[in-house]
Amino acid sequence: MAEETGFHASNDLPVTRPRESEENGLSVMDTETINHHNDSISPVIPGWFSEISPLWPGEAHSLKVEKILFQGKSDYQNVMVFQSSTYGKVLVLDGVIQLTERDECAYQEMITHLPLCSIPNPKKVLVIGGGDGGVLREVSRHSSVEKIDICEIDKMVVDVSKQFFPDIAVGYEDPRVKLHIGDGVAFLKAIPEGTYDAIIVDSSDPIGPAQELFEKPFFESIAKALRPGGVLCTQAESIWLHMHIIQDIVANCREIFKGSVKYAWTTVPTYPSGVIGFMLCSTEGPVVDFKHPVNSIDANGDQIKSRGPLKFYNSEIHAAAFCLPSFAKGVIDSIGK
Amino acid sequence: MAEETGFHASNDLPVTRPRESEENGLSVMDTETINHHNDSISPVIPGWFSEISPLWPGEAHSLKVEKILFQGKSDYQNVMVFQSSTYGKVLVLDGVIQLTERDECAYQEMITHLPLCSIPNPKKVLVIGGGDGGVLREVSRHSSVEKIDICEIDKMVVDVSKQFFPDIAVGYEDPRVKLHIGDGVAFLKAIPEGTYDAIIVDSSDPIGPAQELFEKPFFESIAKALRPGGVLCTQAESIWLHMHIIQDIVANCREIFKGSVKYAWTTVPTYPSGVIGFMLCSTEGPVVDFKHPVNSIDANGDQIKSRGPLKFYNSEIHAAAFCLPSFAKGVIDSIGK
Repeated sequence: MAEETGFHASNDLPVTRPRESEENGLSVMDTETINHHNDSISPVIPGWFSEISPLWPGEAHSLKVEKILFQGKSDYQNVMVFQSSTYGKVLVLDGVIQLTERDECAYQEMITHLPLCSIPNPKKVLVIGGGDGGVLREVSRHSSVEKIDICEIDKMVVDVSKQFFPDIAVGYEDPRVKLHIGDGVAFLKAIPEGTYDAIIVDSSDPIGPAQELFEKPFFESIAKALRPGGVLCTQAESIWLHMHIIQDIVANCREIFKGSVKYAWTTVPTYPSGVIGFMLCSTEGPVVDFKHPVNSIDANGDQIKSRGPLKFYNSEIHAAAFCLPSFAKGVIDSIGK
Repeated sequence: MAEETGFHASNDLPVTRPRESEENGLSVMDTETINHHNDSISPVIPGWFSEISPLWPGEAHSLKVEKILFQGKSDYQNVMVFQSSTYGKVLVLDGVIQLTERDECAYQEMITHLPLCSIPNPKKVLVIGGGDGGVLREVSRHSSVEKIDICEIDKMVVDVSKQFFPDIAVGYEDPRVKLHIGDGVAFLKAIPEGTYDAIIVDSSDPIGPAQELFEKPFFESIAKALRPGGVLCTQAESIWLHMHIIQDIVANCREIFKGSVKYAWTTVPTYPSGVIGFMLCSTEGPVVDFKHPVNSIDANGDQIKSRGPLKFYNSEIHAAAFCLPSFAKGVIDSIGK
């Protein structure tokens, strides 16, 4: 069915027009509407998807498109899936690459295991965003976990992932997972204080539906929803591109989180500048030393059996992720606690 | 003068034709010839430079061009310099980005200080390739160094760097530097055994003039030219893109170098996949533990005064560079010594 709604990328794009469809509850837009919403393949390179954004002016990463598998517009954003020629299937929201099958392991494993391996026996975990299910897949490797809530604002992202990315959406199959479709900010306000051991915020960039997830009131709600010594890990942009955004996030977090506040980063080739960072914070209570994981996932044989081995994360790379280049270390260290 | 030989990138490229020029001994090609040599801006995105290569099929990184400052063809390769809109000036060889002013610090500092900080008091250093002078700039921060030889095959790279990248070519101003224009393979053969404490190979990719620098006879010559317990650091591609090339390099080096053989990597946004790796090897003799630097450059006040502070390298990031993602660690560790 998915195949039928796609169209072939070729040099005469965007003349080719995809068939309108409401199959699987997913509405498909025509190419002209998509272009109007700045979520097109190839206004610039025919047959390629180019990622151009004011968040990384003057540069663009492009992937060759074999076939567009899905284009839709939800209440929140444009959603596109295409088959690339060398990075597997690719999920794009509002023109920005969210994941590719080839390198998603780096992001999903790091954003999940950096916080969960930093505390002993995490039991209750909340994921905000992360509708594709990749973070759920990684959380579910932890056998101590009893309850996994996920609050994703955009049901289309969940549906598209289940249809096109079964190896990622597999996270939803875990019986510990409960999906809440709704606004993360509102969801958090209704949560009793001290509920979670860990909260993972897997958001898109701070332009569009994710904007509030980078602001102070949101971090305050997170801190309240965590138990004493509980941990937050949130996507926190690129040290090469967004030091001004990172400075604000660090300053906010140092004010709100009375435990540990650390910045970590990893390589993801299809993200702008090739890196993505994470803000790791703990609330007042049992001390969390993020640089020295206390909970080794590497040796967890059971979870490897059901999910396959980890591709990226290990205890060494966990510790290394907190070592920053001097230009970033200088700025981050100088932000008063 | 440089300004006069350039032309403005605009939407009607490549119709605009640069003026022929032989100023400064640098010959400038017309646009059609350049396009023929696959070293053009924008056959695909007007006004942008796109890096497309069989070494990274299906993806392209593009930078917006403000102005082309130089285009020439040497005996070995096409050489281009352009002013980008957000990454400063950019040096391109045979269509591949070699450096940008914005992120060159990561590559130059890591390829230099990883080997030189791993041994006490390096005195004699050889650089092969690295005609831009950036590695020289970094080597010259080490006050123990008495002699810096550099063997670059392409004089045009040296001349272009001196003209357009003064903050990089500044490395040539150090009186300890002696420039040899010629083939690195031949140069090494004429070197008495055990001459150098450290050899740094700052090559382009193994397609084109640098091909031999990835082959076994070359590594054998390197090992001979190093003193016992001397160190090699060579550019060694991307773990995301070139594991097959890396496997060959590691296998060759494990056979030839009887000391330590380790792979390290760092982030460089404008290199394909956003990372670049380094092969670090030591010859039989005093043991070299690459992961634990013995020679701290961070605290070297004198060299910071003359060259400005380090932007990227520090002792923590030195150690972190040797921590590999599981997918790469598994492959590299499995290659027998």
